[in-house]
Amino acid sequence: MKKLIVASTSTVHGSGYLEYILPTLEQHFKGISEILFIPFARPGGISYDGYTEKAKEAFEKIGIAVKGIHEFDSAKDAVKQAQGIFTGGGNTFELVNQLYKHDIVEVLKEVLQSGTPYLGTSAGSNICGVTMMNTNDMPIVYPPSFDTLGMIAFNINAHYLDPDPSSTHMGETRETRIKEYHVFNETAVLGLREGSWLEVSGESIVLKGELTARLFKPSTEPIELESNTEVSI
Amino acid sequence: MKKLIVASTSTVHGSGYLEYILPTLEQHFKGISEILFIPFARPGGISYDGYTEKAKEAFEKIGIAVKGIHEFDSAKDAVKQAQGIFTGGGNTFELVNQLYKHDIVEVLKEVLQSGTPYLGTSAGSNICGVTMMNTNDMPIVYPPSFDTLGMIAFNINAHYLDPDPSSTHMGETRETRIKEYHVFNETAVLGLREGSWLEVSGESIVLKGELTARLFKPSTEPIELESNTEVSI
Repeated sequence: MKKLIVASTSTVHGSGYLEYILPTLEQHFKGISEILFIPFARPGGISYDGYTEKAKEAFEKIGIAVKGIHEFDSAKDAVKQAQGIFTGGGNTFELVNQLYKHDIVEVLKEVLQSGTPYLGTSAGSNICGVTMMNTNDMPIVYPPSFDTLGMIAFNINAHYLDPDPSSTHMGETRETRIKEYHVFNETAVLGLREGSWLEVSGESIVLKGELTARLFKPSTEPIELESNTEVSI
Repeated sequence: MKKLIVASTSTVHGSGYLEYILPTLEQHFKGISEILFIPFARPGGISYDGYTEKAKEAFEKIGIAVKGIHEFDSAKDAVKQAQGIFTGGGNTFELVNQLYKHDIVEVLKEVLQSGTPYLGTSAGSNICGVTMMNTNDMPIVYPPSFDTLGMIAFNINAHYLDPDPSSTHMGETRETRIKEYHVFNETAVLGLREGSWLEVSGESIVLKGELTARLFKPSTEPIELESNTEVSI
């Protein structure tokens, strides 16, 4: 039975890395002594070791050890044997690129489907969707596909931002971008604001955190979903 | 001899479509009665006809007719025979996807190299670079390649935005994204602010408009280029 936390961000403004969500993670990873960290998204170009160290420091506070997937001889075996998995944020294109390069897309689907507890933040949440097509990231590498894990039946737009009515900038708003997406695609998109996350438990998907989330479907007006309710598309 | 205008945006705040740059375009397309419009980027999902109409209305003011590439039987012949070409902004992924689908990447390179006057705005400027890897757009479709026209030896980041020191949003700044790009790539990137454009004339590339532009190269601090000076990487 799937057991996932799909979080918009690792960090909310004015708080430490993963700090806002640590009490939730303590429950989520209960009974687990070590989790596997996937540092492939490399925010700011940080090294795998440097990024894993950052995850270690956060999880130490709830008594859980962290090992980076790059420390294993076989990435595939590491995923298969993991007690729990955390994929950190950064660049979604590079993350997806490395998932394919290490040939762990299928094995990730299998273990997540069978119940290995998973945490994704930002890019790590994006890959839980059907495709990575609603990432906000820059296409700095060309991955072999935009298809991702499909653990939820919709896509995630992390760090969702409402339009700023005072802006004079002519770049597209987030909402416009997602509406453009729906000219070409049918899959629903959930705009998750910073501080929001999804608790996926089997087929149940509940929105958590203090904010509402914005659900986009083709040819209909977006709707705001309340916190602590089921996300049903 | 190349003759290109590579503009950050079609529209500056508080002004009509292409209005700020019309006097420049009047010179740029002097002696030309009709230009070919490439509407593939479809901003907001607008139809090819609707988008072409918009371009028509703007160019009418300087006495130039506009015909959409979709109105021709052969896109390739349309490019070959064009007196001038304008590629509008919108979604860069879909634009590049359609350039490959219509098999006009090579013929565009040829005619631009031979001197067909070209205007690009936003996504239409992005494709003048070596790759589309510094677009701000959402990857709503999967193009067969990120390689673009390479009419200039660097990439363009259009609608360049300086970091907002008052922001509490944890998404990456534009500068962070470009720095992440340089962890994986060597090609320089020019951040063109709205209202700025490049005048490319043969091997000369001059920054125009009132603002400076920000040039990013691997392993060095970004530098601000002055307006009315040569862009040399």
